[in-house]
Amino acid sequence: MSFHDSAHLVMERCDILARYSEEANCLTRRFATQAMHSANDMFATWLSAAGMNVHYDAIGNVIGRYEALQPGAKTLLLGSHLDTVQNAGRYDGILGVMVALVCVERLHARGERLPFAIEVMAFADEEGLRYHSAYIGSSAMTGTFDPALLHLTDINGVTMADAIQAYGGNPDPKQLSTSRWQSTDLLGYCEVHIEQGPVLEARNLPVAVVSGIAGQARIKLSFTGELGHAGTVPMLLRKDALCAAAEFVIAVEALARSQPGLVATVGQIDVQRAASNVIPGHVALSLDIRHQNDAIREQAQQILYEQARRIQDQRQLVLDWQLTQENHTVSCNPRLIHTFEQAIEATGNPVLTLSSGAGHDAVVMSKLTDVAMLFVRCAGGISHNPAEAVLEEDVSVAIAVLEHFITDLARK
Amino acid sequence: MSFHDSAHLVMERCDILARYSEEANCLTRRFATQAMHSANDMFATWLSAAGMNVHYDAIGNVIGRYEALQPGAKTLLLGSHLDTVQNAGRYDGILGVMVALVCVERLHARGERLPFAIEVMAFADEEGLRYHSAYIGSSAMTGTFDPALLHLTDINGVTMADAIQAYGGNPDPKQLSTSRWQSTDLLGYCEVHIEQGPVLEARNLPVAVVSGIAGQARIKLSFTGELGHAGTVPMLLRKDALCAAAEFVIAVEALARSQPGLVATVGQIDVQRAASNVIPGHVALSLDIRHQNDAIREQAQQILYEQARRIQDQRQLVLDWQLTQENHTVSCNPRLIHTFEQAIEATGNPVLTLSSGAGHDAVVMSKLTDVAMLFVRCAGGISHNPAEAVLEEDVSVAIAVLEHFITDLARK
Repeated sequence: MSFHDSAHLVMERCDILARYSEEANCLTRRFATQAMHSANDMFATWLSAAGMNVHYDAIGNVIGRYEALQPGAKTLLLGSHLDTVQNAGRYDGILGVMVALVCVERLHARGERLPFAIEVMAFADEEGLRYHSAYIGSSAMTGTFDPALLHLTDINGVTMADAIQAYGGNPDPKQLSTSRWQSTDLLGYCEVHIEQGPVLEARNLPVAVVSGIAGQARIKLSFTGELGHAGTVPMLLRKDALCAAAEFVIAVEALARSQPGLVATVGQIDVQRAASNVIPGHVALSLDIRHQNDAIREQAQQILYEQARRIQDQRQLVLDWQLTQENHTVSCNPRLIHTFEQAIEATGNPVLTLSSGAGHDAVVMSKLTDVAMLFVRCAGGISHNPAEAVLEEDVSVAIAVLEHFITDLARK
Repeated sequence: MSFHDSAHLVMERCDILARYSEEANCLTRRFATQAMHSANDMFATWLSAAGMNVHYDAIGNVIGRYEALQPGAKTLLLGSHLDTVQNAGRYDGILGVMVALVCVERLHARGERLPFAIEVMAFADEEGLRYHSAYIGSSAMTGTFDPALLHLTDINGVTMADAIQAYGGNPDPKQLSTSRWQSTDLLGYCEVHIEQGPVLEARNLPVAVVSGIAGQARIKLSFTGELGHAGTVPMLLRKDALCAAAEFVIAVEALARSQPGLVATVGQIDVQRAASNVIPGHVALSLDIRHQNDAIREQAQQILYEQARRIQDQRQLVLDWQLTQENHTVSCNPRLIHTFEQAIEATGNPVLTLSSGAGHDAVVMSKLTDVAMLFVRCAGGISHNPAEAVLEEDVSVAIAVLEHFITDLARK
């Protein structure tokens, strides 16, 4: 089977899985729902047909094992997630699982066994849509699942424990927080994923190897000034919280533009008691800062905090600044990165290395084993949207790269 | 009776009227409601006791007439409105009516008649809370009422026509759009009102004479860029609509600060599909611009439009700009202003002239006759809020000024 035919199969399977949705007119597939169950069962059928033994773990991850030449060999983990956001695209997560599946399917078709086993895994939850807690699947896989999460309730009041039970899993806290692996048994975890950004498109390249997953800080801040009548308070007597917020938004953009690799975003801005004829008295903002170098990100946080303080002082307002989330950078394994680079070269494509600004299952898997990722170009960098799209020829390249990668590892 | 005692009476009456509310725990008094009816009846009692003939017009304005020395004399109109916003203060509008009432009451107590008649009027609607159409009372008074408004419905589906009928008025379009006055019969309309701004407090002055009511433009604008993932789109590939909006907010503030008397406000800002990890793709803003000189205001509009265009072009976004409302400046009558200035001097206070940034009944009354206004200091410039407050001694000054004003007019 040509890489082209395999890519066509992957595209078809992404289309098929997109039909398993909780909503009639769009793709929404949350953790432990009937839609998830149906998608998993479809996937399990494909795993079996590709010569793999299928296993559902306690939280609902689906795992297909392709045995090594000999018992006792190490295992290479490949995968991504099958859950989606609300009104999702059909490739985020799913593409990576399908590319891993088809690579094993190609080995199986050739009757080829490797000096290591391969497990293809589809995580039951990465997006965290149902319980607002991401990475549920990979945390159970790595033994880092927090049993306190079992008490969380979804929008209908169903606890996570009940959802797991109803789904056919086992909400036993001990089982969920124990890894089925020792690190020493593993060769690593590799994940193919759409880029979710515009860089590959801008560079006109099909794939890139990922250097690491950028650390991230989320901050909630607000400026409090004084509400006032838009017609009667002279400019110099105003304490306009929106003008302060605007100054901060510009400062965030200017700093991020000045520092290579830094991204900083104000995505939310809310004016309390907003009206066209009222001077804003209180404005709340979100701030998201990411960089692959934690020290640079932390320095940026500090600079922006000082800028916000300066704005507060100059405008005689009150600043509130709350760090609500902080994740450190996860570095991909240099040996696995190098193997991916060689595999990309082998397909005749230039090698581009990117940092991932988005989080992925690989973040959690890095607690258990070495990780690596391959990004695939997606149209306009769009994701989390029905408009998500990939080119079949790019998928073909991704399959070829992953096959070269696996073959290379087998040689080493 | 001393000015101090008269001021005390005014404060007590404002307290009494604040009890007539549609809501138990706050002051809300909309057009043609039971609360408005009760407040009007209380006011009518006071008018009668002050020697005035009381008349309710077809739309529910209450008018007390204090006859002149001789029949056929001209008439001076004094007044403001008795309706309120939701969760209102007790002085906006009401104070001006009570000060006018007490001035006539003082004439009556002295048995004094003037070479002109005085009418004290309480408008039934200035705020426009019930039908989202302001100045209903004064437009009926001046014959500028638009009969199409009679078909508007309130939040309960009651048409304005039905509300006027139920209230005891007469929703006859012809009657509502005919003025009971010829301009030649009038000396002018004078309105005492709280400043609703902080200038008098900043200058430590009790009152100011108003030069005019500033013209105003309202604009709705938006920037459309591209939604994106906050972690994956590099700064230089972004089309962040919120950064564009922030740049515009700062440009608005900078322009208004650079031009004496200009006020410009962005009071509303809405990010479509806002999330902390999503680059804003579409942001809508309100813009309110006011200046006492229409040419300066129009020039400011043009400059800000060009700034928005520049931001659009530099950032490769799409700007939408809609002028939704435009009112020209209403100038107060120089002769009446001068009489107010002399009256303020007579009370031993420095004369300050202010432009009114807020709209008032005087805007509509200017279509019928010369207008003038006297502003009274209010605490913190706060209005449209239960915290609205005035000092009894400032009210005392306002009464003295209005009495001097009336006496002066009588001498001329």
